[in-house]
Amino acid sequence: LTDKMKNEMYELLERLFPITRSITGNGVRETFSIIQEHIPLIQHEVPSGTKAFDWIVPDEWNIRDAYIMDDDGNRVVDYQQSNLHIVSYSVPFEGTLTLDELKKHLFTLPEQPDLIPYVTSYYERRWGFCMAHNKMNELKDGNYHIKIDSSLEPGSMTYGEFVVKGKSEKEILFSTYVCHPSMANDELSGPVIATFFAKSLMDRAGSTKYTYRFLFLPETIGAITYISKNFDRLKNIVFGGYVITCIGDSGKFSYLKTRAGNTISDRVAMHVLKHITHDYNLYEFLDRGSDERQYNAPGVDLPIGSIMRSKHRTYPEYHTSADNLDFVSPMALNESLSMVERLIETFEINNIYICIKSCEPQLGKYGLYNNISKKDMIGQNRLIKDVLAYCDGQHDLLAVAEVINRPIWTVKSIIDQLLNHKLIKLAKR
Amino acid sequence: LTDKMKNEMYELLERLFPITRSITGNGVRETFSIIQEHIPLIQHEVPSGTKAFDWIVPDEWNIRDAYIMDDDGNRVVDYQQSNLHIVSYSVPFEGTLTLDELKKHLFTLPEQPDLIPYVTSYYERRWGFCMAHNKMNELKDGNYHIKIDSSLEPGSMTYGEFVVKGKSEKEILFSTYVCHPSMANDELSGPVIATFFAKSLMDRAGSTKYTYRFLFLPETIGAITYISKNFDRLKNIVFGGYVITCIGDSGKFSYLKTRAGNTISDRVAMHVLKHITHDYNLYEFLDRGSDERQYNAPGVDLPIGSIMRSKHRTYPEYHTSADNLDFVSPMALNESLSMVERLIETFEINNIYICIKSCEPQLGKYGLYNNISKKDMIGQNRLIKDVLAYCDGQHDLLAVAEVINRPIWTVKSIIDQLLNHKLIKLAKR
Amino acid sequence: LTDKMKNEMYELLERLFPITRSITGNGVRETFSIIQEHIPLIQHEVPSGTKAFDWIVPDEWNIRDAYIMDDDGNRVVDYQQSNLHIVSYSVPFEGTLTLDELKKHLFTLPEQPDLIPYVTSYYERRWGFCMAHNKMNELKDGNYHIKIDSSLEPGSMTYGEFVVKGKSEKEILFSTYVCHPSMANDELSGPVIATFFAKSLMDRAGSTKYTYRFLFLPETIGAITYISKNFDRLKNIVFGGYVITCIGDSGKFSYLKTRAGNTISDRVAMHVLKHITHDYNLYEFLDRGSDERQYNAPGVDLPIGSIMRSKHRTYPEYHTSADNLDFVSPMALNESLSMVERLIETFEINNIYICIKSCEPQLGKYGLYNNISKKDMIGQNRLIKDVLAYCDGQHDLLAVAEVINRPIWTVKSIIDQLLNHKLIKLAKR
Repeated sequence: LTDKMKNEMYELLERLFPITRSITGNGVRETFSIIQEHIPLIQHEVPSGTKAFDWIVPDEWNIRDAYIMDDDGNRVVDYQQSNLHIVSYSVPFEGTLTLDELKKHLFTLPEQPDLIPYVTSYYERRWGFCMAHNKMNELKDGNYHIKIDSSLEPGSMTYGEFVVKGKSEKEILFSTYVCHPSMANDELSGPVIATFFAKSLMDRAGSTKYTYRFLFLPETIGAITYISKNFDRLKNIVFGGYVITCIGDSGKFSYLKTRAGNTISDRVAMHVLKHITHDYNLYEFLDRGSDERQYNAPGVDLPIGSIMRSKHRTYPEYHTSADNLDFVSPMALNESLSMVERLIETFEINNIYICIKSCEPQLGKYGLYNNISKKDMIGQNRLIKDVLAYCDGQHDLLAVAEVINRPIWTVKSIIDQLLNHKLIKLAKR
Repeated sequence: LTDKMKNEMYELLERLFPITRSITGNGVRETFSIIQEHIPLIQHEVPSGTKAFDWIVPDEWNIRDAYIMDDDGNRVVDYQQSNLHIVSYSVPFEGTLTLDELKKHLFTLPEQPDLIPYVTSYYERRWGFCMAHNKMNELKDGNYHIKIDSSLEPGSMTYGEFVVKGKSEKEILFSTYVCHPSMANDELSGPVIATFFAKSLMDRAGSTKYTYRFLFLPETIGAITYISKNFDRLKNIVFGGYVITCIGDSGKFSYLKTRAGNTISDRVAMHVLKHITHDYNLYEFLDRGSDERQYNAPGVDLPIGSIMRSKHRTYPEYHTSADNLDFVSPMALNESLSMVERLIETFEINNIYICIKSCEPQLGKYGLYNNISKKDMIGQNRLIKDVLAYCDGQHDLLAVAEVINRPIWTVKSIIDQLLNHKLIKLAKR
Repeated sequence: LTDKMKNEMYELLERLFPITRSITGNGVRETFSIIQEHIPLIQHEVPSGTKAFDWIVPDEWNIRDAYIMDDDGNRVVDYQQSNLHIVSYSVPFEGTLTLDELKKHLFTLPEQPDLIPYVTSYYERRWGFCMAHNKMNELKDGNYHIKIDSSLEPGSMTYGEFVVKGKSEKEILFSTYVCHPSMANDELSGPVIATFFAKSLMDRAGSTKYTYRFLFLPETIGAITYISKNFDRLKNIVFGGYVITCIGDSGKFSYLKTRAGNTISDRVAMHVLKHITHDYNLYEFLDRGSDERQYNAPGVDLPIGSIMRSKHRTYPEYHTSADNLDFVSPMALNESLSMVERLIETFEINNIYICIKSCEPQLGKYGLYNNISKKDMIGQNRLIKDVLAYCDGQHDLLAVAEVINRPIWTVKSIIDQLLNHKLIKLAKR
C-alpha cells in the first residue's frame, strides 16, 4: 500500500461525504460511481417489491430539496445546508402549518441541543425534519411553509459487489453498508476502508489462499436481500469475514463476536487485536447492531463478526451532525487499514504444520542453534523450539501462536525458516 | 393459589406439630390422615422385615408415655410435655436407677444448655431421654424411677404418595420426609409445602406438560425402600425433581446440587434462585444430608437436588426444641411456595424454539417494532430481537434466558408474542 | 526404605561427584559401575556414528589432564582442581598463546565472578577453558602454555537401563541423565534418587501393578537415541512417568507438565504435590528444558512430565561450580525420595471402584457408623459416605480424591475398609 493510497482514503471519504444516501436512490449510485474509480465494483439493482425472506424491497426514494420557511421567507430549516435535516424516506409534502402542528414533524436531541439527529422512516410513510433542539426553541409562533420535493415510487435498490479470486473458492466476506447521508464515521469509514483494502488485494488476484468478497449494501434490507438471493452459495463457501463499520475515528479498536463466539473469525480478530494493541474492546453478540445480525441469524449462521473502532451507539457523535469530517482522521483510517490487512494475513497464513523429524531436530546442523552451550545462552532460539514443539498436525498456526503467546506473524517467520530446512511440512487437513 | 390457602399452610403446620412421628408408627399415619384433608394421598404400608437393598424395614415403634420421676413423685422429665424428651425408638423400660446410672441414658447439649436435643436410635435397641443440659445439672443425687411405655414390634412402615398426571409420563419428583417429632422447620415445613403445592396442581391435572409425583417418606429407610420397589420405573421416568426440606424459616434460599451437578434440576433451581434473589446459598453435593443421598447414589443417579432455606445443620435451632412454631413463619412458607411454583413453571415452559423466518423478521410489520428509527430509540424491543437470535433449535429456553441474562418468565412472555405472530415454532426434539 | 538406605543416598552422591562425566566416555561407565553396587543396571553401548532420528551419536570423548600454565610454571587453570575448568568435548591441544589469543578460549560468568561456569561443545570441534571471572582478570599479559590431554575418537555412547517387572506390561518410565561433570543438584541428585527408588522397588518385583523402567541417559542425544531404538515399544507400553532432575536442593518441589498438560502423569504429580505441600511450583511445558522435550515431541507424545525441586535455570548455582555438595542435602534427598514414592503409590492405587449396594449401605451393620443419631454426631464417618458416593465406576481414585479434596492415600484407607466389607468392588475397565 503506497502512501499515496493512504492519503487517498481520507480524500475519498471527503468526496463521498456530501452525497445524500438512503437505502435506495441515486445517492447510492453516485457513491458507487466514485468508488468505481478505485475498484471495478459490480452494481446490482433489485426492483422495488422484490421479496427477501420476511421483507419486501421498498419503493425508491429520491429528494431534491426540502425546507421550512417562515413568514418572512427565511428557510429556518434547509436541506441544502445539511441533508440530515430531512427524515430519510420523507414523502413529498407542501403546505403551511402552525408551529404546534409543525412540531409533530420535528425531531431533535434535547440532551445534545446543538446537534442535528439522523432519523429514518423507511417502512411507514411519513415526513419530518430534524434540527438542533436549541434552534427549534428559537422558532416563534406563527405559520411555517413546508416544502419537501421528494419522490417515493417503484424503482430499485442498489448494492455493490466486488470479488478478488484466490486459489480456493472458500471466501472471506467483508460487508459494509452504504445508506447513510452525510456522516463520516458511521458510515463512510466502512466503505472507504473496504474500497482501499479491496484495491490493495487486486494485485494479488489469483495468488491469495482465499477468495475475498466485498459487499456494499444498504444496511439490513440490503444484507437480507443479498442473503436471500445467495443463501446456498454463502452457506457452502463463506469461511469467515467481518462487517466493517465505524472504523475511522480515533477510538480504540473494537471487536464484536459472532453468535457462536468461537469461530475462526473470532479467533483471528481477537488474536490480531490482542497483539497490535493490548487495550481493545471486546463485545459479545448481544451488543450487535449492524449486518452481523443477519449473517448470524439462526439458520443463516455465517461466521461474520464486526470490526470497528468506537462501536456504534457508544460515542456521543453517533447518528448526529457531529459525526462529521473532523470526527475521522487520515491516521485513524490508515491504522484501521493496516489492522484489516493483519486480519487477512492471519487468515492467509493460518495453516497446520507437522514436524518431519521425530524428537527435536539437531538445530545446530541447520545454523539455527549455537553449538556451544553456556548457562547464559540456554534460552537462545527458544522460539524455534517452541514453534517446533507445537507443529504437531493438530494446532493451527493461530493455536501455536496462542500457546506460545506470540503474534502469528512472528510465528510465521519461524515457520518459513523451518520449511526452508525441511524440518516441518504442511499437514493435510 | 388463594390467600386462604396461604394462611392454611401455617395452620396445617400447627396441627401437625404436636404429633409424635418416627420412621414407623401411628404418628405418621395420623399425620397422613390430616394431610388427606387437603390431597388424596395414597398411604402405603411396608411390613417390618421387608428387605430394601442393604436395609431391612425395622419393627414398628409406638409410644404412649415416658417419664423420669424423682423420689418425691415429680416427673422431672416428661414425654407429655415434649415428645423430644424420649430418644426415638426407645425400647420399653421400667425401673429405678441412681443418678449416675441414669446419666448413661441421658442426652443433652452442653453448648446449648437450655435446649432439648433430638436423638434417635433406630437400628440399635436402647432407651434414653433427652433434656436440657441445665436441667440435668439440677438433678440431685438419689434414685429415679423410669417408665417408658413404648412398643417395638413387627408392624409396618408407612409412606405416602400422590401423583398429578400431566400430558407426558415423564415425572418431576418431589420428595419430603415425615419422621420427626415436634420440630417445625426440620421437618414439617417440607411436608406442608409439598401438600399445598400438590393441592395447587390438582386443578391443572392433565394439562401440565410433566407428571408430578409427591413422596412423603420416612427419611433414609423410606427413600431407600421406595427406590428399591420402584427402581426401573424411576430410572425411565424421572426427569427432574427436588427434596424439599427446612423451608419454613426466614433464612436465605439454599440449593444443594445433584451429584452430577449439571442436571436439568440444577439448571432450573440455579436460574430461578438467581432471578428471584441474587443472594442465595449454593451447596455442592458434598454438603448433602437428606434423601438426595439416596436418589443420587451411584447407579441410582436420579437428577434430584435439594431445595431449602437454611440448610440442615447450618442453623443453631437445628434438631433441638428451638426448632419450634416460632422458628417458622407464614410469610416464609408463602415465599417458599411461590419459589417452588417458579421451579415448576420453569420446567413447564422450558421448550426449544426455532425461528421460522430466515434473517431477522421485519418486526415493524407485526407491531413489534417502531417504524421510525431514531438514535435514542434504537435499543427498543431489543429483548424481542435477542430472544429471536437464540431461537435456533439448539438453546432451550433456560439457555436463552441465561445467554441474555433475563428470567425465563420474562423470556416466555416474548416467546408467546413470537408464537402469536408465527415467527417461531416449537422445535421437535 | 531403611534409614541406612537414606543415608546412603548422600554417600552415593559424594562418591559420584568427582567423576568427569560427559555425553560419552569413561566417566559415564565409572558412574554406572558404582550405581551397579546398588542395582543391576544394564549398560548399553551405542557406537559413534549411529543414526538416531535427526542426530548422529558423536565420537567418544575422554580427558586425562588439562591446564593453562604461566611463564613461571604455575598452573593458573587446572583440570585436576575442578573438571569444570575444561569445556566438555574440548579437542586435544598443546601450544603457547598470548593472553589476548587465550581469552578467545576462556569462558567466565561476569555476573557471578567467583564461579566457574559449565560449558559444553559437543557438536562443534573446539577447545576452551572455564574459570572464575575474577581469576581471569588477575591474569597478567604474557604467554600462556596450554595443554589439553584429551581424545575425541570413534568409540561409543553409554547408557543404563533397569527394569522392575510388575503384573502389567504397562510401564511407568523414570528418566534421569548422566552426562554432567562435578555438579551435585544438576545432575547427580537425579541419578541418585532414581537409583535408590529403583533399589527400593526391587523387593516388590512381580507384585506391583505397573512395570517400572529406569533410564540413565546422556541428556538429549541419549534420550533421542533411546527413543529411536525403542519407539514402537514405548508408544504401546508407557503409561506415565517422569524425568527426575535437580531434586537434591532444599527448594520447593516443582512440577513441569507434559505437552498435553492433562495426562495421568500430570494428574498424579499435581495431586501428590498439592497434598504433601500446598506451596509447590507448577510449570507449563513451555518452561521445559530436559529430556521431557524429547518424550513429548510431536509424534512421540509420551506422557512424561518432569519432577524437580528448584527447576533448572531458576537458581543462581545452576550450571556453575556452586552447584556443589553443599548445595544438596541428605534431608532434601530423603524428602524427594518420599515424594517419588508417593507418586508411584498413587499410580499403583489409582483404580476405579463401583458400589455393590444400591443406595447408601447401612453402614451401622458393618461397624462403620454409630447407630445413635445425635445433632453433634451427624458428620461422623462423613468420609466413608463421601468416598462411597463417588465409587460409581466412572471416577478413578484420583478423581474421587479431587472431588472430596482429600489425599488419595487417605481415600485408599477408606477403600480398603469398603472392600473388606464387600461394599465396593473393582470396576472392570
